[in-house]
Amino acid sequence: MTGRHVIAVGGSDAGISAALAARELDPGCEVTVVVADDYPNFSICGIPYYVSGEVEHWSNLAHRTLHDLHDAGLNVLTGTRATALDTETRRLTIHTPGGRDTQLAYDELVIGTGAVSVTPPITGLTGPAALGPSDGVHQLHTITDARALADAITEHSPETAVIVGAGYIGLEMAEALTLRGIHVTQIEALPQVLPTVDTDLGALVHRELTAHGVDVLTGTSVRAIEKTGGRLKVHATNPDGQPVTRNADLVLVVVGVRPDTALAESAGARLGARGAIEVDQWMRTGVPHLYAAGDCAVTHHRLLGTTWLPLGTTAHKQGRVAGQNAAGADRRFAGSLGTQVVKVFDLVAARTGLREHEAAGAGCGWKPASTTSTPDDHKAYYPGATPITIRVTGDTESGLLLGAQLIGHLGAEIAKRVDVFATALFHGVDIDAINDLDLSYTPPLGSPWDPLQISAQAWSREHHPSEPNT
Amino acid sequence: MTGRHVIAVGGSDAGISAALAARELDPGCEVTVVVADDYPNFSICGIPYYVSGEVEHWSNLAHRTLHDLHDAGLNVLTGTRATALDTETRRLTIHTPGGRDTQLAYDELVIGTGAVSVTPPITGLTGPAALGPSDGVHQLHTITDARALADAITEHSPETAVIVGAGYIGLEMAEALTLRGIHVTQIEALPQVLPTVDTDLGALVHRELTAHGVDVLTGTSVRAIEKTGGRLKVHATNPDGQPVTRNADLVLVVVGVRPDTALAESAGARLGARGAIEVDQWMRTGVPHLYAAGDCAVTHHRLLGTTWLPLGTTAHKQGRVAGQNAAGADRRFAGSLGTQVVKVFDLVAARTGLREHEAAGAGCGWKPASTTSTPDDHKAYYPGATPITIRVTGDTESGLLLGAQLIGHLGAEIAKRVDVFATALFHGVDIDAINDLDLSYTPPLGSPWDPLQISAQAWSREHHPSEPNT
Repeated sequence: MTGRHVIAVGGSDAGISAALAARELDPGCEVTVVVADDYPNFSICGIPYYVSGEVEHWSNLAHRTLHDLHDAGLNVLTGTRATALDTETRRLTIHTPGGRDTQLAYDELVIGTGAVSVTPPITGLTGPAALGPSDGVHQLHTITDARALADAITEHSPETAVIVGAGYIGLEMAEALTLRGIHVTQIEALPQVLPTVDTDLGALVHRELTAHGVDVLTGTSVRAIEKTGGRLKVHATNPDGQPVTRNADLVLVVVGVRPDTALAESAGARLGARGAIEVDQWMRTGVPHLYAAGDCAVTHHRLLGTTWLPLGTTAHKQGRVAGQNAAGADRRFAGSLGTQVVKVFDLVAARTGLREHEAAGAGCGWKPASTTSTPDDHKAYYPGATPITIRVTGDTESGLLLGAQLIGHLGAEIAKRVDVFATALFHGVDIDAINDLDLSYTPPLGSPWDPLQISAQAWSREHHPSEPNT
Repeated sequence: MTGRHVIAVGGSDAGISAALAARELDPGCEVTVVVADDYPNFSICGIPYYVSGEVEHWSNLAHRTLHDLHDAGLNVLTGTRATALDTETRRLTIHTPGGRDTQLAYDELVIGTGAVSVTPPITGLTGPAALGPSDGVHQLHTITDARALADAITEHSPETAVIVGAGYIGLEMAEALTLRGIHVTQIEALPQVLPTVDTDLGALVHRELTAHGVDVLTGTSVRAIEKTGGRLKVHATNPDGQPVTRNADLVLVVVGVRPDTALAESAGARLGARGAIEVDQWMRTGVPHLYAAGDCAVTHHRLLGTTWLPLGTTAHKQGRVAGQNAAGADRRFAGSLGTQVVKVFDLVAARTGLREHEAAGAGCGWKPASTTSTPDDHKAYYPGATPITIRVTGDTESGLLLGAQLIGHLGAEIAKRVDVFATALFHGVDIDAINDLDLSYTPPLGSPWDPLQISAQAWSREHHPSEPNT
């Protein structure tokens, strides 16, 4: 029983994980979570499924209720902004819902302030006359944003929407709005949708969007959004430099997030990759008694070193490490591999580790090369087999596995197949050693050599013939 | 180009894998496969799906056609039995389809004779008056068996069937015959169905069978099968020692297999675990130039040492190693973890590694304990979430992961979730380290801590409190 007071600033994945971990490690800790809005421990990743109507009520997106958090022994201060941090006297200034400024003393503090939406330099989005939710122009990162969007859809029954951005959230929202019966035009400035995978794999997702009626414009930069005669008009430039205009009842701008580092900076914490709070693998900021975790902090990547890669899974892990260390433990964040998965209609796209150009640029001396295979998810004689596109990337000198990208149908166990790659990658294996793994097989769900192993064999055959494979 | 002649005896997984591997490693090899029946490279695991009608024609069960095998450069002698082996002069005697005995000289020979059905000591199954396919009594291990059964169902339209045995094939056949509209009574001598998993997990499979109309009798030993008045009568003894009788139009006896070692024994190869051919990890029998692989040979298990564990996946891996070594390589079979999966109606059951009593009996000094969790396969707020029953077994002294059993719904990615455990297990990790794995997450397909990690945390909380988890 130390009796120490641990404060977590931020009520999302990292903050709550830190608070729960501290309390579980040392039930003698007093643990306080400072939450700016009224939605502690909500699933940000679940927002598209609330807007789509698949989740009936926004409150269902809570990982835990406020009651659960109290039961776990946490003090949760909602509607409370952390405004200043004195790291000498270890006092946090908070602004209470009642409008009062007050100070909390702490022994250890974990910053889990997360990320905020990036507002791109598009005319109509910035400045004093910026369009907002009341005009039908939305951003989408918080539960407040989500409720505003869902309410707007219910009230105004928009028939058409433009989504600016085709990353994870943009793609999920294209599906969500389509499910609501809204015709979606998706505009992406980069030459492909889902830019986190290789171009030809992104093209498979593009095709899936089109097959479901989404109008996709890639390589197209939005210049301005204007409201005239009660309707929204989106002005863009296509890849040929020609103007493109789309009318819409609703515009959703989801072009990414940036770390929210204001509080950490005010406390003198250093910033690192992509402007995120610099931390070591113990999640220490370097400022005594001050930790940071989650989307606001840099990410230790097992192959790349320090980078910034905001993911809910990482936020949970980093938060847990920060909370345990704040409570007196000596735990190290083992590092990310950037494992990600997204469902887009009936397709699932996933990746782990590095793509070829990322590996080549990592400065590790690798000579990366990739091979693409399209094995069936299970034996073709059993009904319903579908091909999985698997791209394996490895070092041609050593045979080391560096990464994998998979795209396939819902039901082809893509999410957990990428996890097998992620688990192998975690242990630093040669691609050839994937064939040694004792993976499960039954004809309705796989093949005697799992598709992963078939793709590994194809890579070895092409790039590493000294390691024979069958 | 060595010009050596490699012979593989056996046309199933191990024999064909060996032949293909030898030929791929050294295209200068001459490679001959001796196949007793007319079905080289057929999927034995696919038989239930042919009998069920899901696979339209038996020929679809071929992994590769004879034409494919010829294209790969193999000589395939079908309908040809290998009858004797002279390991001094390196000559194999074969009995050709034309009825002639002839000899083939070899440089290296791989025995992949597989396994044969065990005929249990049941009155009516043995002796000169034994009942057989023409009486409606079937065993089921070969494509010949499968065709006889499928033809009998088509010709006689049986309304009722008794299946003796409730292992993998028995369970798959209960589903298959039910799909054909046949009422199935499944009789298992052991106290549970699917005896390869723990009793209470087997009970979930039992419930699934019952829910689909299968009449399941466990702890019930079949004593006799008789044919009277054109109908079959199965006499058994229930757990209370009382007689039980069932009439049936069809009886299927699937109580397991034993290794087919006749040829190897005739060549002086030693037998090991469960009477299978003793081999080292290079798949060498100890007799010069003689390898064995697949269901006829012992299995190196990464946790148990040498055992016998016939699985198609293992046969492929062992065959590949044997073939490569026969062609001059120096490859080692990395070992099995006994990873298995079976689909029974809408349920999937899987395991990898050891169960608690297996670990306790392994003689490795482990103090194993298990924890069962039932996390949802994905976030409960997204429609369609189902609980997965996950039992994790580990060593309470060291925290080492020893095994996992999973049962859940089709669609819950059970097969690949067990593979993540298998991949971790392959690398010899602590259960706590499963939390470090960077696994994928999207609400429709998982949770920020994957169910695997939730089950690992539950184990640590119960058995290894020194490793704190959140």
